[in-house]
Amino acid sequence: MTEKTAVTPATHTAPPAKFSHGVRKGNILQVAGQVGFLPHVEGRAPTPAGPTLRAQTLQTLENVRSVLEAGGASWDDAMMIRVYLTDTGHFAEMNDIYNAYFEEQGLKEAPAARTTVYVGLPAGLLIEIDALAVLS
Amino acid sequence: MTEKTAVTPATHTAPPAKFSHGVRKGNILQVAGQVGFLPHVEGRAPTPAGPTLRAQTLQTLENVRSVLEAGGASWDDAMMIRVYLTDTGHFAEMNDIYNAYFEEQGLKEAPAARTTVYVGLPAGLLIEIDALAVLS
Amino acid sequence: MTEKTAVTPATHTAPPAKFSHGVRKGNILQVAGQVGFLPHVEGRAPTPAGPTLRAQTLQTLENVRSVLEAGGASWDDAMMIRVYLTDTGHFAEMNDIYNAYFEEQGLKEAPAARTTVYVGLPAGLLIEIDALAVLS
Repeated sequence: MTEKTAVTPATHTAPPAKFSHGVRKGNILQVAGQVGFLPHVEGRAPTPAGPTLRAQTLQTLENVRSVLEAGGASWDDAMMIRVYLTDTGHFAEMNDIYNAYFEEQGLKEAPAARTTVYVGLPAGLLIEIDALAVLS
Repeated sequence: MTEKTAVTPATHTAPPAKFSHGVRKGNILQVAGQVGFLPHVEGRAPTPAGPTLRAQTLQTLENVRSVLEAGGASWDDAMMIRVYLTDTGHFAEMNDIYNAYFEEQGLKEAPAARTTVYVGLPAGLLIEIDALAVLS
Repeated sequence: MTEKTAVTPATHTAPPAKFSHGVRKGNILQVAGQVGFLPHVEGRAPTPAGPTLRAQTLQTLENVRSVLEAGGASWDDAMMIRVYLTDTGHFAEMNDIYNAYFEEQGLKEAPAARTTVYVGLPAGLLIEIDALAVLS
């Protein structure tokens, strides 16, 4: 009855391995780790939105949103947002960008929970975000 | 029908960005990443319980517990506890503190699953913990 | 009614602290962080399957599978697979091993979502994986 469905926004580059950008089963939607890659262009390798934290954070959030929406959800359904940064010195700026982004989204419900930790990421990437959503 | 609710223990310092210390929707409660900050005192900046792994681990666990309880849950409902340490040399000591803490809590059910990884955290912080709970 | 149950495959070494290799409650099954330890042998300390990424990745995936199955689930139920590597240089090789593994498993549904980040792990360990499953 409850079927698992892959969620793949048309704009997304293909995952680099056998996984899905999102998976929905029942009312649970899991968004895979997103980075700041621009929408896919046929024949172009995955390309970050830019070298800056701002460009990558905004694109990453948009990429998460695309998966949420392709899965029938929205930011309002997000329960947990996991933010991976590469540099503790980026925390304050990321928060500013994050806050401005969510103000613009005009969320009507309480924002999600969040954990931010500092890890290694592939060269050129400054941020990665995944999310767990529970649909109403 | 299933509404998302922010969970904010009165003792907690305000999150440094637009997110909630906890979010509950239906029977799922997600606790945001907690660190070893002491209960909030008006006008005081967030202050770790101490410089030691012991002080921070115990305070962090208490902060997670506060969110669980403010969301109508308890440690018995915890499914997953994610522990972020900064130093692999802290693993054995953290486990000792963790075990003693949960023995004191007198859990009646099986403990949660857990993942421990070693990441960067803001200066002065040695541990961060988040948790996923499923209520009965 | 919905009881939380610890999931402990007979082959697994005992967790190094008060947590369970897996926990199930209702239709949610959380698998704790698994590493590449060989099946438990009485009197032997936890022993990685080998020093290579290949040996450890395959054993780690098998260890996750054992917990899924002990909890009444399978890879088909996996919603999220979290991969922790220690070296960004291991990404491509891990993906090759990961893809081959899941092809062999013959999954009938879409694969899970995934996040891969680069962290510290205890000496000798190159990969850790945990998973969230939602049963049908």
